[in-house]
Amino acid sequence: MSDVHLYHPPAADLAYTFGGVPPVRTVRPGDVIELSTEDCFGGRVRGVDDLPSVVCEFPYLNPVTGPFYVEGAEPGDTLAVHFAAISPARDWAVSSTFPHFGALTSTHTTATLQPPLAERVWLYDVDAAAGVVRYHARRSDLVVELPLDPMHGTVGVAPAAFEARVTLTPDAHGGNMDTPELRAGVTVYFGVNVPGALFALGDGHARQGHGEVTGVAVEAAMRTTVVVDVIKSVGTPWPRLESDDALMSTGSARPLEDAYRISQHDLVTWTAALLGLDELDAYQLVGQAGEAPVGNVCDPNYTMVAKIPKRYLGSATAYEGVHARLREVGRAHLAHR
Amino acid sequence: MSDVHLYHPPAADLAYTFGGVPPVRTVRPGDVIELSTEDCFGGRVRGVDDLPSVVCEFPYLNPVTGPFYVEGAEPGDTLAVHFAAISPARDWAVSSTFPHFGALTSTHTTATLQPPLAERVWLYDVDAAAGVVRYHARRSDLVVELPLDPMHGTVGVAPAAFEARVTLTPDAHGGNMDTPELRAGVTVYFGVNVPGALFALGDGHARQGHGEVTGVAVEAAMRTTVVVDVIKSVGTPWPRLESDDALMSTGSARPLEDAYRISQHDLVTWTAALLGLDELDAYQLVGQAGEAPVGNVCDPNYTMVAKIPKRYLGSATAYEGVHARLREVGRAHLAHR
Amino acid sequence: MSDVHLYHPPAADLAYTFGGVPPVRTVRPGDVIELSTEDCFGGRVRGVDDLPSVVCEFPYLNPVTGPFYVEGAEPGDTLAVHFAAISPARDWAVSSTFPHFGALTSTHTTATLQPPLAERVWLYDVDAAAGVVRYHARRSDLVVELPLDPMHGTVGVAPAAFEARVTLTPDAHGGNMDTPELRAGVTVYFGVNVPGALFALGDGHARQGHGEVTGVAVEAAMRTTVVVDVIKSVGTPWPRLESDDALMSTGSARPLEDAYRISQHDLVTWTAALLGLDELDAYQLVGQAGEAPVGNVCDPNYTMVAKIPKRYLGSATAYEGVHARLREVGRAHLAHR
Amino acid sequence: MSDVHLYHPPAADLAYTFGGVPPVRTVRPGDVIELSTEDCFGGRVRGVDDLPSVVCEFPYLNPVTGPFYVEGAEPGDTLAVHFAAISPARDWAVSSTFPHFGALTSTHTTATLQPPLAERVWLYDVDAAAGVVRYHARRSDLVVELPLDPMHGTVGVAPAAFEARVTLTPDAHGGNMDTPELRAGVTVYFGVNVPGALFALGDGHARQGHGEVTGVAVEAAMRTTVVVDVIKSVGTPWPRLESDDALMSTGSARPLEDAYRISQHDLVTWTAALLGLDELDAYQLVGQAGEAPVGNVCDPNYTMVAKIPKRYLGSATAYEGVHARLREVGRAHLAHR
Repeated sequence: MSDVHLYHPPAADLAYTFGGVPPVRTVRPGDVIELSTEDCFGGRVRGVDDLPSVVCEFPYLNPVTGPFYVEGAEPGDTLAVHFAAISPARDWAVSSTFPHFGALTSTHTTATLQPPLAERVWLYDVDAAAGVVRYHARRSDLVVELPLDPMHGTVGVAPAAFEARVTLTPDAHGGNMDTPELRAGVTVYFGVNVPGALFALGDGHARQGHGEVTGVAVEAAMRTTVVVDVIKSVGTPWPRLESDDALMSTGSARPLEDAYRISQHDLVTWTAALLGLDELDAYQLVGQAGEAPVGNVCDPNYTMVAKIPKRYLGSATAYEGVHARLREVGRAHLAHR
Repeated sequence: MSDVHLYHPPAADLAYTFGGVPPVRTVRPGDVIELSTEDCFGGRVRGVDDLPSVVCEFPYLNPVTGPFYVEGAEPGDTLAVHFAAISPARDWAVSSTFPHFGALTSTHTTATLQPPLAERVWLYDVDAAAGVVRYHARRSDLVVELPLDPMHGTVGVAPAAFEARVTLTPDAHGGNMDTPELRAGVTVYFGVNVPGALFALGDGHARQGHGEVTGVAVEAAMRTTVVVDVIKSVGTPWPRLESDDALMSTGSARPLEDAYRISQHDLVTWTAALLGLDELDAYQLVGQAGEAPVGNVCDPNYTMVAKIPKRYLGSATAYEGVHARLREVGRAHLAHR
Repeated sequence: MSDVHLYHPPAADLAYTFGGVPPVRTVRPGDVIELSTEDCFGGRVRGVDDLPSVVCEFPYLNPVTGPFYVEGAEPGDTLAVHFAAISPARDWAVSSTFPHFGALTSTHTTATLQPPLAERVWLYDVDAAAGVVRYHARRSDLVVELPLDPMHGTVGVAPAAFEARVTLTPDAHGGNMDTPELRAGVTVYFGVNVPGALFALGDGHARQGHGEVTGVAVEAAMRTTVVVDVIKSVGTPWPRLESDDALMSTGSARPLEDAYRISQHDLVTWTAALLGLDELDAYQLVGQAGEAPVGNVCDPNYTMVAKIPKRYLGSATAYEGVHARLREVGRAHLAHR
Repeated sequence: MSDVHLYHPPAADLAYTFGGVPPVRTVRPGDVIELSTEDCFGGRVRGVDDLPSVVCEFPYLNPVTGPFYVEGAEPGDTLAVHFAAISPARDWAVSSTFPHFGALTSTHTTATLQPPLAERVWLYDVDAAAGVVRYHARRSDLVVELPLDPMHGTVGVAPAAFEARVTLTPDAHGGNMDTPELRAGVTVYFGVNVPGALFALGDGHARQGHGEVTGVAVEAAMRTTVVVDVIKSVGTPWPRLESDDALMSTGSARPLEDAYRISQHDLVTWTAALLGLDELDAYQLVGQAGEAPVGNVCDPNYTMVAKIPKRYLGSATAYEGVHARLREVGRAHLAHR
């Protein structure tokens, strides 16, 4: 029987690293958590005059809710986090340019002598009923409706090797992967590095373009429902995702082709294992049937996703069918809420 | 009134570079060309025992049909090539690994001391009636049907600055972009660098995974119908694509993030120009509404596509509506064939 | 009057991260520390049959001695660490290949489907009297004498933003920069991120090729003497080095051109500030007079050094002359030892 | 008996590509050529008010002298070009920033929305007698003397596979490698791709910083003396250099780590072949004894050099001792001039 945890933390209880932070709650495999997350600016950018570099204070950016200690999760296991629901908490969301951050500007890493792009904020209407967000140009009257497509940019566990990493950086522990594939209905898998796994999440996006080219998505506080489970003695080298329709592997690295390589390498070896297939045969199958949704090309590491539709994988089932089970737990919970 | 050209060249008349090759035909704006292309192996790999490194001879790889001299095309203009139809010429297609080529192997550029992966060939059934290609594992009995989705990996014009480039390399002149977006129904735009533009095409794929991770798609000879036009005194910095639903920019470079940057940069500035939008406003719009289909992560340059659905662009029309006009010419031609 | 600290820790007291570790000693500005460091394998590889992947245990690799708490060092200050002496502690040193580590192999980041290179160990004689290390080929009788040139691959402070980073990774806090420029006679500067700075060091190399192409240098335990100081209210964005003859900036990032950009950008802006020079004038001067010693092209981030001879900088003095002062403290100490 | 060729072409006879250009002279193995080269701006930038983007015309940049047809050179052979003398032709040289070119600016490849850096020209005095060039700051009175160290940035042969490449791009055929190692006293080796090899050279630098971070060196027209030879039936995969003291391999690619990999891979396999050494033993030796001078980090491909001092290679002799022979021919010629 699963417990239901409600967790709506004040700002002071949010975290800014994966690792190095004590757990805020202990949960058990099968439990449901209803939680709140703040946006990447900690909710401080509320209008077009709130420039992030002025109203926010480094390093208090990209807060995450958690970490949660999952009983029984130990190094060598896999943590499954199913996203049953992700809903914007407000009727507005925000985006911006940010000095020396994004793909079409020099950065502190791709360092040039040019001044940064101008810092500017865009406020979006979030119309959940209509299922849209509304873009308003700042220098003209153009208004464009874009589909609402809520997701979490940041979710992860405590890293291996005693590390603590800022929530802005994606790596093998998850973190700021910023992939639009991480929406409601999806289960995310992480290799467990420390007892309890210590997962946390945040950085909701009302929607996001591919690659997050401006460095900032349509940022939104979220109300989110997750269901967690532990697969014992099964490792997961890089975060993986599963939807009803597809299996996905992620890779986060620089340059971008290395993120691509990591994600495709993991999907090839995973496919080979699931289908009992020779590795080169799996390489060929993924090579022709696979997709490669871009996550982000702006964070301290870039993220790529490798994706294969389940219809090409016959009856193979990943992680002992945990995705289907957690989906049912989530649906049952939401139906009776 | 458009002329119709039929061009089905013997192997000896195929080309292996963009630039440095005399034209095979002269056509006029508005003309239709029905043509044949060979596969990337020159048709020499016809069974699983035909190892490409044995049956093919460097540099006679990736042959293209053309180049075609388009009357009136001059440097500073844009060439439009509309793909009215792309159909596999045979009931089979082929893929392979190739020594030190592909994304999950070291290469001559990403040089390591490791031996290459084993060279292996996969033969696919092409079932045009069912709309599928059929994968057969080499080391097991697995058979998987994948959607037939014909495209051309290679299309381009003569490069600028007196260059001649092998057909394997994508760059600002087009070439081996290997994007699945280049399917029937799409118009491709190129900046013209030399009188007549000298466009050529080849490298048909019955389908291709995202990034062409193995280095080789489901390679197929094609029967293809294109309609050409010239937009005078309008430049195009990098190849662009237009479908009924979307505008697309391409970038080809290394590392992969630079291909992403080029393509997104072009789409942002193009969007700004089409909508009369401030550049940062266009950056924001593309940043949230844009897509980023991966072309290839295996060629001498990698290719990314930046894509925005037309429905977000209001009534803006690209290149004076040439896509719609060429589409109608193509449809009329095919209907009366 | 400077205190002298002797610190020769047992293996159990070594650290494996920068950040997240309590200090082992407190020292004051101007103090001298005589200390021991273990080699990157923790001293476990002692012969050609000791394969690192067998005798070492992840994540207990690349141990560092420290961290040391420096009184008065606060965020916003700069820590200066002068290396007065670095001497191999044994008459042998060791190198190896390591599976999927190094520049001429695929890695976990540049992931391919190829098996790793064979793991092999080379034992070097360290002949301090002759000033050489002696290479012995494993598959032939070739012996080559190379100059002994002791250095520390790893030195750094606690990172910013509550991070803890494994000692294998170089970044803005220092870490595993693996530059041969970090030899005796050199002062290293770090921006201070936490009270006490918490610097640590290890990973001695009897010598190292440029880029550490095999992933492993001539690894040696060291006896090292450092002198520390704090420059109050002066920041340092990336680790810098100063010798009697040159100023140097470092950058650690991927891809390698970004490490180059960071280091050159810092040297240009530093030069402009030191000489009161217009930024483009400094860019031009560094552009023609500057050097770019490669650190490593194998660690989780790559490291480049940007270097300018002092003779081109007139009478400009960096960091209020602290290098010359610490050098004299170090010499006096060594002379009276 | 070697012939001596004098070749001082007018501007109209210079070339702008490697490949695609007919030879200007035919020479024989062992011949000496005394020739002139223009600077990268074609001599059009003669003062600080001559902005390159105004006075130069694309694609007429980086002219080369040649190509020279070498009798008997055939595909599969190696061409040796020994640089006996390189002397600035004028008492001034020039450098500049150039819009969107260089390492500390966004470029057309690393595309951002930022405006370019300001374009500015620096005029250097070339004082051959004193052996210096003199830098003059533009916005202050600072003057700095730097050692005169003449070199050629661009030298190469016609590429393989029917290509023609602009002289700005370095690749396997040579081209714009921009390495300061290419100074008088050095022999350069190229694999021959077409009959006669068709080598050409230009882009003299009075000196150059490592990586040519501003995109432009101290550019100078040159008077240069070369001696050529052909090593029959010996291939050379990438350009190599030999001085009296060292052997060097080059690699030109993006990202920069791939240029490093190519050059180190070639030096490792070359060393193994020269010494009859097991490949991993050669990897280890180059790994500890090797150097990695940076060529350029600003051209369409970046260039790295891998270098090993000859003193570590025992009595091994490269290319049948051609370097020593050509050096003597060059010295004899210069002595009797």
